[in-house]
Amino acid sequence: MNNKSASPKAGKVIRCKAAICRIPGKPLVIEEIEVEPPKAWEIRIKILCTSLCHSDVTFWKSSTDLPKLPLPVIFGHEAVGVVESVGEYVEEVKERDLVLPIFHRDCGECRDCKSSKSNTCSKFGRGYRPNMPRDGTSRFRELKGDVIHHFLNISSFTEYSVVDITHVVKITPHIPLGIACLLSCGVSTGVGAAWKVAGVEVGSTVAIFGLGAVGLAVIKEMTDGGADYCFECIGLTSVMNDAFNSSREGWGKTVILGVEMHGSPISLNSIEILKGRSVCGTYFGGLKPRSDIATLAQKYLDKELNLGEFITHEVSFHDINKAFDLLLEGKSLRCIIWMDKLI
Amino acid sequence: MNNKSASPKAGKVIRCKAAICRIPGKPLVIEEIEVEPPKAWEIRIKILCTSLCHSDVTFWKSSTDLPKLPLPVIFGHEAVGVVESVGEYVEEVKERDLVLPIFHRDCGECRDCKSSKSNTCSKFGRGYRPNMPRDGTSRFRELKGDVIHHFLNISSFTEYSVVDITHVVKITPHIPLGIACLLSCGVSTGVGAAWKVAGVEVGSTVAIFGLGAVGLAVIKEMTDGGADYCFECIGLTSVMNDAFNSSREGWGKTVILGVEMHGSPISLNSIEILKGRSVCGTYFGGLKPRSDIATLAQKYLDKELNLGEFITHEVSFHDINKAFDLLLEGKSLRCIIWMDKLI
Repeated sequence: MNNKSASPKAGKVIRCKAAICRIPGKPLVIEEIEVEPPKAWEIRIKILCTSLCHSDVTFWKSSTDLPKLPLPVIFGHEAVGVVESVGEYVEEVKERDLVLPIFHRDCGECRDCKSSKSNTCSKFGRGYRPNMPRDGTSRFRELKGDVIHHFLNISSFTEYSVVDITHVVKITPHIPLGIACLLSCGVSTGVGAAWKVAGVEVGSTVAIFGLGAVGLAVIKEMTDGGADYCFECIGLTSVMNDAFNSSREGWGKTVILGVEMHGSPISLNSIEILKGRSVCGTYFGGLKPRSDIATLAQKYLDKELNLGEFITHEVSFHDINKAFDLLLEGKSLRCIIWMDKLI
Repeated sequence: MNNKSASPKAGKVIRCKAAICRIPGKPLVIEEIEVEPPKAWEIRIKILCTSLCHSDVTFWKSSTDLPKLPLPVIFGHEAVGVVESVGEYVEEVKERDLVLPIFHRDCGECRDCKSSKSNTCSKFGRGYRPNMPRDGTSRFRELKGDVIHHFLNISSFTEYSVVDITHVVKITPHIPLGIACLLSCGVSTGVGAAWKVAGVEVGSTVAIFGLGAVGLAVIKEMTDGGADYCFECIGLTSVMNDAFNSSREGWGKTVILGVEMHGSPISLNSIEILKGRSVCGTYFGGLKPRSDIATLAQKYLDKELNLGEFITHEVSFHDINKAFDLLLEGKSLRCIIWMDKLI
């Protein structure tokens, strides 16, 4: 046992419950698993609560034209937890710190992570990668010894997870846990896109897509020639096109947030873009996790950012499949899944 | 004759020489024409020198998939001249002022022209329009009375032209005429794109397109992952794509300047744009003619902007077809065409 550690489990394998996906599109099954101790540059986190993001559902549905997901897998990447133990070389956080796992890496060392212009780490690569920590192996296994896979380098639908330190940020304990959980992914992506990427000013017209052709016409009418800012949050190229075409001549800016999973290109009218329009894309709302998450948390505490209304439902971990049903039925924005109510 | 006017020709038709295009792709023919006095919101300019821009050549070639150009027409839109007389309501300039005709309008009154965010006039419409002044009629006619058409609302391949005041900016007489002429279109577009649209910083890597696949590979290699800024100046969607793909992940910005004349869309990889890349388009380098041309002229006078090397050739007006030959053979950047050497 690590002498510096206050955790009785540090350095040991932990047995705990996790919600496993064995067959895409089928209900998750809660099983007992083993979670290894963190290796170098990793931490083990006791998850306090997690929530279901559309990206989990997209991969869970796992249509045949998506990248093949290794199975079985533990989904979940939007969460808040407490550091249970830390691996070698970890200096950024210590045991008992409240932390968020963040699917979008921030190594803090590369040219991109050091620059204020970029939020995409060039040391460890960019974008979604549905697999493992830094060394390519898994920290999860079944009791019979078989590997269970990580998801987006995170996996939060488990009582304990092991996450690379570049995927973790510390967060103030003054913030409610459910709100902290939202800042781990979806809400930060949206707020960041408006704040950091688009730079939306007070009084601007903003359109959030998808809307069909009818909605499109309404917006052109309502905004006197198009919206100042358009946000595409779905990942469909037809919707990206609608967003671009609804942006105002002169300065209309379209921000692509949605991840297009089928390899289709965006097609833009070459003359329309010359009329002063622009298009940009961003992961994680252009936020730099290490610095910007703390800023968003403070904005919440200062009542500048109203996030409570995003939480429409709450369930216990053993009811995790209800969170899927609610999202698939369009009934929930975010459903907080509480781990402690498992037992 | 207008009492307020110092010009002996004010209010009268002027007979002068112009280079007429009667058949697309054939040498221009210098003929005597009649130029009417300016109507309301118009001025008549004595052209001092003009130069040949690729846009003139594109329309002169007039391939069948371009918008049909009315003939006969007087090409030319990059020029400098002296105000000969002004029409009713014109207050921005007076007789004998040195002025540039600018194909890109600046009415100074609409929401776009008043905003620092836009350079595309929304009162009179945007983009290229190969035709007439505000009232849709021409100020040029043949001696036998038939109409000769304007080009891009300008027409500078003539000793005298009539131009709408929204297409004119005053310029300091301290600047050499050849340099002033360049600021009327091409050079301003390029400098503006780097200065106003891209905001290129010292030390940035910049790539100017078109380059083929080989050049593309060289750039990726030379710039450690792609250029900070890419400029597409041709108007080919394949080149726009090359430019985008050569821009750096994280913050790479592609600026489209080239006018795509065949209606082909730009096709962008939906995942690559998410990695922090952006694409924008602009007419006239994002410059606001009324304010920014004066700034560029001052930068030239302060020796911050070196423009002399753009002038590779000079010819007399009666040799205007040589300017076409030089450009088509790739021998000239800009050829100044001097009107006074006609006789």
